[in-house]
Amino acid sequence: MATYRLVLVRHGESTWNKENRFTGWTDVPLTQHGVDEAKEGGEMLRRQGLTFDVVHTSVLKRAIQTMNLVLSEIDQEYLPVNKHWRLNERHYGSLQGLNKSETAALHGEEQVLIWRRSYDIPPPSLEESDERHPAHDKRYGKLPKDCMPRTECLKDCIQRVLPYWYDAIAPDILNGKNVLIVAHGNSLRGLVKHLDNMSEEDILKLNIPTGIPLVYELNERLQPIRHYYLADEEEVRRRIEAVANQGKAK
Amino acid sequence: MATYRLVLVRHGESTWNKENRFTGWTDVPLTQHGVDEAKEGGEMLRRQGLTFDVVHTSVLKRAIQTMNLVLSEIDQEYLPVNKHWRLNERHYGSLQGLNKSETAALHGEEQVLIWRRSYDIPPPSLEESDERHPAHDKRYGKLPKDCMPRTECLKDCIQRVLPYWYDAIAPDILNGKNVLIVAHGNSLRGLVKHLDNMSEEDILKLNIPTGIPLVYELNERLQPIRHYYLADEEEVRRRIEAVANQGKAK
Repeated sequence: MATYRLVLVRHGESTWNKENRFTGWTDVPLTQHGVDEAKEGGEMLRRQGLTFDVVHTSVLKRAIQTMNLVLSEIDQEYLPVNKHWRLNERHYGSLQGLNKSETAALHGEEQVLIWRRSYDIPPPSLEESDERHPAHDKRYGKLPKDCMPRTECLKDCIQRVLPYWYDAIAPDILNGKNVLIVAHGNSLRGLVKHLDNMSEEDILKLNIPTGIPLVYELNERLQPIRHYYLADEEEVRRRIEAVANQGKAK
Repeated sequence: MATYRLVLVRHGESTWNKENRFTGWTDVPLTQHGVDEAKEGGEMLRRQGLTFDVVHTSVLKRAIQTMNLVLSEIDQEYLPVNKHWRLNERHYGSLQGLNKSETAALHGEEQVLIWRRSYDIPPPSLEESDERHPAHDKRYGKLPKDCMPRTECLKDCIQRVLPYWYDAIAPDILNGKNVLIVAHGNSLRGLVKHLDNMSEEDILKLNIPTGIPLVYELNERLQPIRHYYLADEEEVRRRIEAVANQGKAK
């Protein structure tokens, strides 16, 4: 029997998804479509009558806006919210801001595929003088510099997500709180890989659909008993395909 | 010379302001006009280039929505936010939900004026069996019952706001953080009375305008050096009148 429940929501379309640019830690807003995806996610939770005790999200506005819209939809704006950089999207290094097709033209389609699809090969690092380096952003200003990503492969991203799972999220769950996490494709992959004890190969193949709540039922050791999406298979498949296609250099 | 800066914002029009009903702890949303007031408040902050380190607000959605809109306008969604019931509006007891004119017809205009305008005479209490009692609301469910208001005069409201000032807000300021508070007419009155060391009579006469940021510059003992609104006198006067008139039984 399940002892705990955990819900994950991936934010919907942002302006740079739409423009097919590498986003990473760049703080871009949702598109209108992304806003609609967030509201739909909230509706799915509301229809199930799910209530929460605490929310965890990143410090990027596409996740925070999604979270605000979800909380409004389920009429639980009053919930305590924790925003943490460890739930941010994977840092995309010096590719951040570049158009995916341009990058393919510059570095070759094959190289871009390696950066996008390998588990442990990060894109080129940002120089500290680069204005895109986190040191220049007020919200990361108090982080020790050796802790600030200048680029990340999926492995790096997952490694920096996990301390937040162990130190903040897992204790909340073990304290009996119903936890909602609103985050990003790759930070959520980190949580899912850990929960489901997935291989590097399998997590690379996993695309989490946007805006559809993913419910985990966990036992007292925080091992999953089952997990399921709050939408039918067809809708889940459609959204996963949309996200997977988004990635392709056009 | 000022050592610290503190900014207060009062939420704008809610649906029950518009319907002229006693709101108190009832969790009603902003009207479109209230949304516009929040955005304008955010614009005033943005024009001044003010940045913050932390936000404190209530657990009522009209304040939380205002806060979200302000943070979006100043592009600081990433800020940590603390939501606490001690910053809630004054609890209006068994008058909550009643139309102000109906209440005047029921209890007499004079009695209503006493409840509205006296410092220390609260409206009738809510019974615990009343569905409007905070014990029936999940967000207050873990508060000891003797700590839950069943009604409040202004004095009660101010007395329960002050522990939050001393325990949460003042330490943030003394730690060098730029603090933004988004709250309600009477919880903000509590802070202003304390900061400006105002008499009971004077605080009763003070109407804080909605949506216009009120900036306090404080010395190292958290005493005000000066305070000012981020709008011209005419605009401040216009909004104060709108709020004062809102209160009148029609």
